[in-house]
Amino acid sequence: MRVLSAAIGMVLASATLLPLTADAAQRQTRIADSAITVATTLRDTALASDLGYRVTESLTTEVGPRMAGSDGDARAVAWAQAKFRELGYDKVWIEPVTFPKWERRAEQAKVVGAHAQPLILTALGGSPGGTVEAEVVRFADLAALEAAPAGSLAGKIAFVDYRMERARNGGGYGPGSRVRSRAPSVAINKGAVGFLMRSAGTDSHRQPHTGITRFDEGLTPVPSAALAVPDADQLARLLQRGPQRVRMHLDCGWTGTATSYNVIGEIRGSKRPDEVVLIGGHLDSWDLGTGAVDDGAGVGLTMAAGALIGQLPKAPARSIRVVAFANEEQGLHGGKAYAQQHAKALGRHQIAAESDFGAGRIYGYSSSAPAHAQAADRQIAAVLAPLGIAHTPGEGGPGPDISPFAANGLAWARLAQDGSDYFDLHHTPDDTFDKIDPQALAQNVAAYAVFAYLAAQADGDFGSAPNTAPNTASKGARD
Amino acid sequence: MRVLSAAIGMVLASATLLPLTADAAQRQTRIADSAITVATTLRDTALASDLGYRVTESLTTEVGPRMAGSDGDARAVAWAQAKFRELGYDKVWIEPVTFPKWERRAEQAKVVGAHAQPLILTALGGSPGGTVEAEVVRFADLAALEAAPAGSLAGKIAFVDYRMERARNGGGYGPGSRVRSRAPSVAINKGAVGFLMRSAGTDSHRQPHTGITRFDEGLTPVPSAALAVPDADQLARLLQRGPQRVRMHLDCGWTGTATSYNVIGEIRGSKRPDEVVLIGGHLDSWDLGTGAVDDGAGVGLTMAAGALIGQLPKAPARSIRVVAFANEEQGLHGGKAYAQQHAKALGRHQIAAESDFGAGRIYGYSSSAPAHAQAADRQIAAVLAPLGIAHTPGEGGPGPDISPFAANGLAWARLAQDGSDYFDLHHTPDDTFDKIDPQALAQNVAAYAVFAYLAAQADGDFGSAPNTAPNTASKGARD
Repeated sequence: MRVLSAAIGMVLASATLLPLTADAAQRQTRIADSAITVATTLRDTALASDLGYRVTESLTTEVGPRMAGSDGDARAVAWAQAKFRELGYDKVWIEPVTFPKWERRAEQAKVVGAHAQPLILTALGGSPGGTVEAEVVRFADLAALEAAPAGSLAGKIAFVDYRMERARNGGGYGPGSRVRSRAPSVAINKGAVGFLMRSAGTDSHRQPHTGITRFDEGLTPVPSAALAVPDADQLARLLQRGPQRVRMHLDCGWTGTATSYNVIGEIRGSKRPDEVVLIGGHLDSWDLGTGAVDDGAGVGLTMAAGALIGQLPKAPARSIRVVAFANEEQGLHGGKAYAQQHAKALGRHQIAAESDFGAGRIYGYSSSAPAHAQAADRQIAAVLAPLGIAHTPGEGGPGPDISPFAANGLAWARLAQDGSDYFDLHHTPDDTFDKIDPQALAQNVAAYAVFAYLAAQADGDFGSAPNTAPNTASKGARD
Repeated sequence: MRVLSAAIGMVLASATLLPLTADAAQRQTRIADSAITVATTLRDTALASDLGYRVTESLTTEVGPRMAGSDGDARAVAWAQAKFRELGYDKVWIEPVTFPKWERRAEQAKVVGAHAQPLILTALGGSPGGTVEAEVVRFADLAALEAAPAGSLAGKIAFVDYRMERARNGGGYGPGSRVRSRAPSVAINKGAVGFLMRSAGTDSHRQPHTGITRFDEGLTPVPSAALAVPDADQLARLLQRGPQRVRMHLDCGWTGTATSYNVIGEIRGSKRPDEVVLIGGHLDSWDLGTGAVDDGAGVGLTMAAGALIGQLPKAPARSIRVVAFANEEQGLHGGKAYAQQHAKALGRHQIAAESDFGAGRIYGYSSSAPAHAQAADRQIAAVLAPLGIAHTPGEGGPGPDISPFAANGLAWARLAQDGSDYFDLHHTPDDTFDKIDPQALAQNVAAYAVFAYLAAQADGDFGSAPNTAPNTASKGARD
């Protein structure tokens, strides 16, 4: 299948020189000129609309923080259903998602001794509570921690001081978040009684970045937290002067099981209503901020894109399904539940795109389109181009909540947002509505509306088909 | 005296056209060419030195927060004495400053009801503790609060939502800090049981700005706090949707009396050691940050400037006195104590300059120089000019800690720092060492070193003389 697709791709690439075979031509997915015309108007309407901004304001203001399983999360579920209805969606429903519940209650830390002073930190999601006072051992990065001798951290607090790098595509987050996910277990294995890391962030404010961590099976978890960037700087400077002891107190932990919901709104298709183009974001946030760039904007802009399609004189052929996913932050629970609950309908999902990288301007469009859909993909890219969006085939992968389904064969698209500033805010108290630029958000809405409308109108598919190979969790899987 | 000075000023202004009278010429303060030569080399040495940066790093790292009367404050006093000695100052001493002590222990707030969510705030210095839950009434500014009918705030929390403006010279802080100092009393007079304000700051981070407030005599103080800017935005948005109740809990208050110290280091003058040029900053900080721009930098850069003068082959004629003032933040206690303790020596203070506006590049130089010292003032300005510093006679006033002494007749100079970003950090947790630009700080050290050296070498005075008129507290008083 991959070989065949590649062969057709080569044919397509030289389409202006060589006539297609009858067989290949028959399989081509194309979009009618009339749909392009509608999408062009839709794009410009969306660009002039503040609907996405208003929906995002509504969620982040009226609900505020909405950590999975919290009261705020329950209010967000009610908010999303009401908002879908208010926006004129034809069908609104919820699907349950059950997961372990983690709570943050209080947290504080200080350097003790001659240089006594507070440090600002936040518990990593999944950390146990506890009070630890111990000497701190600093490591420049994860590799340095891994290289520490066995037992060398007995009774100590490990401090991984890795500074993540800023990048438009967020590429610095890979190594940054790997410290958060891996380093606590490595430290425990070497005897550490507590874990500290420089926040996986690119800002310079006293706003620590939380985020989920996991402890390897068989280990006894220890209190694990991220220092705000200036506090990591400060601790590193103090450690240059000599040994330092830190006292950290975390009151947090797992508290049983909670159920939340994927909230789904649908604009009914005019010809093939059982087939859907899926767009969305995740409804939950971390507790520290109000989840504006992560991911209120994703919910707001995709809700608005769907609503604007719903206001067209005629609905596209396929349905537009907007999903506000539950509990992305603590392990893609909503995305996994959706993939499971809709497994049999995978083939009726034309293509999916999730917005979960803030509200910066979209600069690139790519998708998993196989050879027979690449012409249609280029048609979509051409309508996106006036928004300043380049066609970047082969780049990126599916958004987090659609990645489990994509791993099973779902076609996906990526509308790549400029994330240069995203990790200044991500998972911090500072992730609030005032950080969103309304013009950039409108450009996002326009791009999602164009993409969803044209994919829903296409004559032919984008390659969604259940994998026959075993499910792999790899992101960015192509068909 | 003022009239006479003005008359001489007119003569000076036309000096190139009209010969001075013998009398006026006799009084002129001038600086010898040899001193200008030394100052030029000193300037370039200071510009290439990182001493000010290192001293500031030492204070903010090793001591950290140092609110007046706290353990950190006591450690700062010890640090300053040790640092003066380490830097080679000829004489180091302390002078006691006693003041009421205020403590912050805990603070939290939340919106209650349908939109329940936390709000980030900080108690204003001087606020009493207490827990208040009440409906919030918003006012756009202080004038709107003042216009509220008598009794209209009975049982309510007043919220003054004034947004201060960014300016290079910090001009927006006047109206911003007036809300903090005046509005709580106005609100209490109308029946309010609590007071909230949008932080007097120009940032957009969840870092509330503290600062001292005062309650009018005869009023019963109420819990008074500043919301972080995004939290003020959020509360304002919620209030657009309908009435809101806020619960605020402040654990803070006055706890008796404390004694701290002005810490003083002196480079002994070679000819007139009893006469001094005074430079300095304030040693205390608020508790939320580590007081880097307010005012670790002021202490660090003036300590460094004095030390670099001390390293010259020959000391200037007069002594260079560097003062790290105690408890500026809660009412200029150190500055007032200094003015009182040195009242009889006012005439032996050649001139004074305090750095208490961050560590941005200095862009302007001005002083209270009377007509007979304006030629010398221009000589100083000429050596400062290559640092990008304009001569701006008539602008500004003395720094806060020298203003009580200046009101009594002390000559002062202002080295005006670019404060465009100062109120992003001022009085917040974010006031930390990483915010300081080492090149800008070196430029500050160079400017202070040039100013102090040349003023100490001048043949003649800058007009310091005890006022015969009653002491007025006005800033910017000219002799």
